[in-house]
Amino acid sequence: MAYINENYLKLKAGYLFPEIARRVKAFAEQNPSAKIIRMGIGDVTEPLPPAVLEAMHRALDEMSRRESFRGYGPEQGYDFLRDAIAKNDFQARGCGVSADEIFISDGSKCDCGNILDIIGAGNRIAMTDPVYPVYVDTNVMAGNTGSADEKGEYSGLVYLRATAENDFTPDLPSEKVDLIYLCYPNNPTGTVATRDTLAKWVNYAKQNDAIILFDAAYEAYISDADIPHSIYEIPGGREVAIEFRSFSKLAGFTGVRAAFTVVPKTLRGRTSDGQSVELHKLWHRRQSTKFNGISYVVQRGAGAVYSTAGQEQVRALIDFYMTNARLIREGISRRGLTCFGGKNAPYVWIKTPGETTSWQFFDRLLHDAHVVCTPGSGFGLSGEGYIRLSAFNSRENVQEALHRINRLAV
Amino acid sequence: MAYINENYLKLKAGYLFPEIARRVKAFAEQNPSAKIIRMGIGDVTEPLPPAVLEAMHRALDEMSRRESFRGYGPEQGYDFLRDAIAKNDFQARGCGVSADEIFISDGSKCDCGNILDIIGAGNRIAMTDPVYPVYVDTNVMAGNTGSADEKGEYSGLVYLRATAENDFTPDLPSEKVDLIYLCYPNNPTGTVATRDTLAKWVNYAKQNDAIILFDAAYEAYISDADIPHSIYEIPGGREVAIEFRSFSKLAGFTGVRAAFTVVPKTLRGRTSDGQSVELHKLWHRRQSTKFNGISYVVQRGAGAVYSTAGQEQVRALIDFYMTNARLIREGISRRGLTCFGGKNAPYVWIKTPGETTSWQFFDRLLHDAHVVCTPGSGFGLSGEGYIRLSAFNSRENVQEALHRINRLAV
Repeated sequence: MAYINENYLKLKAGYLFPEIARRVKAFAEQNPSAKIIRMGIGDVTEPLPPAVLEAMHRALDEMSRRESFRGYGPEQGYDFLRDAIAKNDFQARGCGVSADEIFISDGSKCDCGNILDIIGAGNRIAMTDPVYPVYVDTNVMAGNTGSADEKGEYSGLVYLRATAENDFTPDLPSEKVDLIYLCYPNNPTGTVATRDTLAKWVNYAKQNDAIILFDAAYEAYISDADIPHSIYEIPGGREVAIEFRSFSKLAGFTGVRAAFTVVPKTLRGRTSDGQSVELHKLWHRRQSTKFNGISYVVQRGAGAVYSTAGQEQVRALIDFYMTNARLIREGISRRGLTCFGGKNAPYVWIKTPGETTSWQFFDRLLHDAHVVCTPGSGFGLSGEGYIRLSAFNSRENVQEALHRINRLAV
Repeated sequence: MAYINENYLKLKAGYLFPEIARRVKAFAEQNPSAKIIRMGIGDVTEPLPPAVLEAMHRALDEMSRRESFRGYGPEQGYDFLRDAIAKNDFQARGCGVSADEIFISDGSKCDCGNILDIIGAGNRIAMTDPVYPVYVDTNVMAGNTGSADEKGEYSGLVYLRATAENDFTPDLPSEKVDLIYLCYPNNPTGTVATRDTLAKWVNYAKQNDAIILFDAAYEAYISDADIPHSIYEIPGGREVAIEFRSFSKLAGFTGVRAAFTVVPKTLRGRTSDGQSVELHKLWHRRQSTKFNGISYVVQRGAGAVYSTAGQEQVRALIDFYMTNARLIREGISRRGLTCFGGKNAPYVWIKTPGETTSWQFFDRLLHDAHVVCTPGSGFGLSGEGYIRLSAFNSRENVQEALHRINRLAV
């Protein structure tokens, strides 16, 4: 019998979101009349921007005629999209990212996981806690960890605690690490990193020859002018960081699927005998061999985000969700609960009342308010005692959910 | 500095198709007036079927309204598509494949590569030669091989030779292997496996506790009634095989991106201490964690392939390409060259004249006939002395290419 990848057996029972789905499904079956409001998983609810739809319809029309039909595209994405991203998302902010450093993909979740394909064994890996579970699970799958302890933490990972006490800004690791996952604006806490904080990480990475995996999936939600959108805004960022970006939350693409990853040509790793290797080449080879690019139609949709109309429509979409976030923050605060985030991010991170655990509060909100949240403990030990509410919803649902939570005996 | 995956450094210089692209680009730059006909990479040329376009436009309309907007879908694909596949592609042929054994993805190339995520170290891996290079390269990347020898073959792989002498039907391996890649209808030789041949492999796999990775990306091109389309048509297939399928060649989706992989719940692997593990669970976990499903719009397009109109249109598309294949076979034979395949597959496998190498003949066809083929040696040692022509082209181009080849002094 063929050997399987035994690292999978180290994984804890369920990935967070399937477990939430299971509990919600069970509740819904027992309470068919309950009008459940889903504020758990960060999934957009508003229609695609008209400019995106128009571009996709047009691309389909191209696909209906032999003269304009497109088959296989470049695995790394079409130039029209890579150019627009380089210009608008990076060069406009003074980041020297070129189009050929941008790899179009079908999702940041995929890229965050797949990036480990080009990373070797023997690295010391650090990630914040609480954290997007994909970073942890993909490292377990790749064999970069030992087993989970009784609390669910894996040996071989360095957990950087983000708590209310340190303003959700973890200290630099006290030991030398080689790979660091950072996500800003942060999922799940909704907090951001200042320029100084990011500079501190870039300097640490330079001094320790470490690589930063920077997840900026929520950068479009930054409203404070002095918060950096990209790690490449920090001097030296190009020498130490890979950046992940997505159209999911930017333009409502969670069901459309488009994202991109920046691997600067200036970023290097090493072999065990000390040879220095360009990571861009490895990722290019990985994507050419194990990936076939994303749908032409979707790439045209993503490209339309950078048109004048697209930019306005996307801005309106984000403003809409950020008004939701403000309403949630205000409503939750009025209810007497402490909350964080939601100012430069679509997530509000809420302290559970008293000694209530995350899952207890999840169940209470589900059963008594018919509101689905995400239990903070699902993101790691330091998430215990918190829940996350997502601002991705209709205005009516947000207002109704807050109304129900307000009536709730917590 | 972080350690990289050093296995990448074992890879030979270029993946085959980028190397072809490089040579064609160089030729085109030096000969801007040359009307190059591309019959190398197997890329479709005809417009998408109207039923598919219609379904995709309709799905876009759904995405334009809040009531029908879809965000994240199930990572494994929507039920409407999985159900249609299970019913039409498998149950209609007597294969007991259920919808929840089908995982929708963005490409067979991706799945063929990613499947190794759930496979462990220490397996003996066999693949035919010549072979789709992705099988080889992804095993090198995963660390399942040693280095390449001077001929370009990797230690740790068992090569099963497919030559004109054995009718391109390799013998069973003389040693015990654990993982076997099979592709039928075959890329690149265009030949097929009879029911008896497949039964021989299924029995071998059962007797040796091996897993077959069965790539059936070209099954729609089978015209002989007695050639199996799926390995699950063979008794015992569900206990030993994973099957890869794609909409790329079936419905002209190379630029649209949709495929699927079947992992039967009856298929098991083992841990190093002998524990038996269901592979379906591992792949489900892999896809839930490292993948986010494919575009809803694309899934609706793929679903339309199974409508009555879609089936007729897809049939016409395949007939069109298969007429090309027949013309190529006939034209090449008339030119006095020996060829194989092209009867149940869109590829014709052509013996080069005399002692001409594959790349020499590639260059001659490019320079003297302005026709791009794929050099057989790019698929492995046993491909030396062959080239592959693809039937994916307009009728005009096929006829013009044959006309030019006919005039060529070979």
